[in-house]
Amino acid sequence: MRDFLPGDKARRERVLSVIRRSFSARGFDEIETPVLEDHGRLHSGLGGDNEKLAFSVLKRGLTTDDLVVAADPLALADLGLRFDLTVPLARFYASHRAELPSVFRSIQIGPVWRAERPQKGRYRQFVQCDIDIIGEAGGIAEVELIMATAATLDALGMTGCTIRVNDRRLLVSALTMLGFPPKVHDAVLITLDKLDKIGEAGVIAELRERAFPDEPVDALEAFFGRATTSTDAFGEGAIRAALPAGVDAVAVSELAAIGLAVEAARGAGQTIVQFDPWLVRGMGYYTGAIFEVGHPSLGYSLGGGGRYDGMIGRFLGSDVPAVGFSLGFERLVDLVDLDADSAPAAVALIHDPEVAPSELMLLQSELIASGKRVRLERRPRNLKPLLEQLAATGFGSYALVEPGATVALLEFREFTGQ
Amino acid sequence: MRDFLPGDKARRERVLSVIRRSFSARGFDEIETPVLEDHGRLHSGLGGDNEKLAFSVLKRGLTTDDLVVAADPLALADLGLRFDLTVPLARFYASHRAELPSVFRSIQIGPVWRAERPQKGRYRQFVQCDIDIIGEAGGIAEVELIMATAATLDALGMTGCTIRVNDRRLLVSALTMLGFPPKVHDAVLITLDKLDKIGEAGVIAELRERAFPDEPVDALEAFFGRATTSTDAFGEGAIRAALPAGVDAVAVSELAAIGLAVEAARGAGQTIVQFDPWLVRGMGYYTGAIFEVGHPSLGYSLGGGGRYDGMIGRFLGSDVPAVGFSLGFERLVDLVDLDADSAPAAVALIHDPEVAPSELMLLQSELIASGKRVRLERRPRNLKPLLEQLAATGFGSYALVEPGATVALLEFREFTGQ
Repeated sequence: MRDFLPGDKARRERVLSVIRRSFSARGFDEIETPVLEDHGRLHSGLGGDNEKLAFSVLKRGLTTDDLVVAADPLALADLGLRFDLTVPLARFYASHRAELPSVFRSIQIGPVWRAERPQKGRYRQFVQCDIDIIGEAGGIAEVELIMATAATLDALGMTGCTIRVNDRRLLVSALTMLGFPPKVHDAVLITLDKLDKIGEAGVIAELRERAFPDEPVDALEAFFGRATTSTDAFGEGAIRAALPAGVDAVAVSELAAIGLAVEAARGAGQTIVQFDPWLVRGMGYYTGAIFEVGHPSLGYSLGGGGRYDGMIGRFLGSDVPAVGFSLGFERLVDLVDLDADSAPAAVALIHDPEVAPSELMLLQSELIASGKRVRLERRPRNLKPLLEQLAATGFGSYALVEPGATVALLEFREFTGQ
Repeated sequence: MRDFLPGDKARRERVLSVIRRSFSARGFDEIETPVLEDHGRLHSGLGGDNEKLAFSVLKRGLTTDDLVVAADPLALADLGLRFDLTVPLARFYASHRAELPSVFRSIQIGPVWRAERPQKGRYRQFVQCDIDIIGEAGGIAEVELIMATAATLDALGMTGCTIRVNDRRLLVSALTMLGFPPKVHDAVLITLDKLDKIGEAGVIAELRERAFPDEPVDALEAFFGRATTSTDAFGEGAIRAALPAGVDAVAVSELAAIGLAVEAARGAGQTIVQFDPWLVRGMGYYTGAIFEVGHPSLGYSLGGGGRYDGMIGRFLGSDVPAVGFSLGFERLVDLVDLDADSAPAAVALIHDPEVAPSELMLLQSELIASGKRVRLERRPRNLKPLLEQLAATGFGSYALVEPGATVALLEFREFTGQ
């Protein structure tokens, strides 16, 4: 968990405001849920491995007697900090469905918490930016999410981002066509998920080492030898060519429709959208299209998502189609290079001790009214360290204020360094 | 703890953005700290009664053995959710002092948590907006905070707000002059704090009932009879006239200087700034000026603050002057009536099933580029309920989209109700 100093905090707020504006322009509505959810709901099995990383909150007013009768430590907790924004969204939608549009496009931007071991690029408190479309079963929902994400990355000035797209049903049917029995699919996918890092030969070697049946592994090896490329365009023919023969025809045509619509509509954006036949997203709840955003400078993804039609229904008792896309804000903010153009010009008024506070306030208010950001500073014996510090924090322009000063009489000077 | 639906969330973000802009214009810098702090630090005695309301977070990886050896339930917690923004600020300043300006003006806007019993106007998760000036011992810091708060309330269009100002040292010396022994001061102040609600006669009756010595209570009653008004202007004479004879002369002149500077600089703002000789702020850590913002429609304050010179030093080992002002965002946001003028015009594209997703995306992108906010909706059999729902959420303008549509051909119609 980190403190954010003024420069970092200002950067974060600028990036968040671009993201908010971009999603909102596409008709998404921002909501907010409490950071604490019921402990039982957080641990209902929807969060996968993340549930194990949840912070739990002690019941209030416990006594030592409670320690004695508790079956285990978690029995003392009734709340927990959310570890993602998807479980809270499902709970929110179940609570407020009647007050929401029948197709609900949500934006959620907020911190989540995971008790990870500290390591580069991972924090215990971090911000996620999620968009979800609930109530739309058709592929237009996927198209909207991919377009909104690509447009947002473009608006942030990101170059080199790639959104890879696949369909969970294609993965499953490809493994079936190769002869892997259904019960080993999840285990095989864990190895296939490393294709980017260890390559085709590495995947085959690991599958053999993990003692999967020879025949389907041989079939995969032969297929890898035949397929021209692992990342390709979106036509039905191209999708079929990148996969073993006989894969799920409905999934092929739905994915092709999504991809072709995005290709036709993308225009001149920087972000590339690609089909990736071996993209695997870890979460077990995906039921259709899956997405992942990558950047060449990162060894991990910038975000991802997919269709999860079964999940909202768990809280509601009736099936509701849903698809979502989550951007990892912490990784994104490090890559974004937004200039602070839109910020108002900042000036410092460095005042002698004789200047009355009311005079300073009047000068400040008048300058603010003319669009400036104004910081007051007492004049120190040695001016230079103060000027350096001011310049470093954006107050490169300053005026020395003596009693009787007026805004018209102030002489602003620039100080930008040594 | 509450969910915020789209309309409420949008309002909250608009209000926050006005507050941020107003504080930032006056040279304050926003920072952010994690919502979790060390359990021991939260319970070090700086938070007063609020410490008892803190949510505690269980250590990770506890076993049933830990239950057996724990002395009490809180021994199982190592972290807690912050109950205010002042303890985190003191910790932040102690950690980062070398990287901050020598006079540091901070903005903190974020949620805090208190395990309160649910009641009107109180929530278990709520947002505070704090500004603090650390490192400035002179009254100009108080003047800046009062001006920044008054300007922010004005910018929010609030009318009828009053910022009442007093000095903790005046309260103490007034009680001393009346003859109350120092050891009962805190107890007497608890009753005096109710002056607004129970009046002078009520205060005297309660003090008698609580069996304080007769002589000083008689002296207070006689003083109440003599003093012309309990709320007055800021000249030294006016301050003296509102208090028993002989009160702390330094505090009188410092408070008069603060008040006169604010009066001279305030101009045409809506927010009134007043001296209140019997304003008592509950927190024991205040050492000088104290403030409280009220609004006639509320039975509780909208915010408050004061000088707390001793507190930052607790984390740093050396004394650092500090003064802060906190606005209660939840109470404020209910009173503010900001229009959504600055939001882009929102239009809905209601499309036939035959329109290709790529066509819709191109229309949407083109409209966004021209400054619109655009929501896509499938055309339902019955249009009216959809139009009503759209109008209720700000999408009062819509166009029906058929295959082959272009932006130039779209006919936008207004739907504003029945």
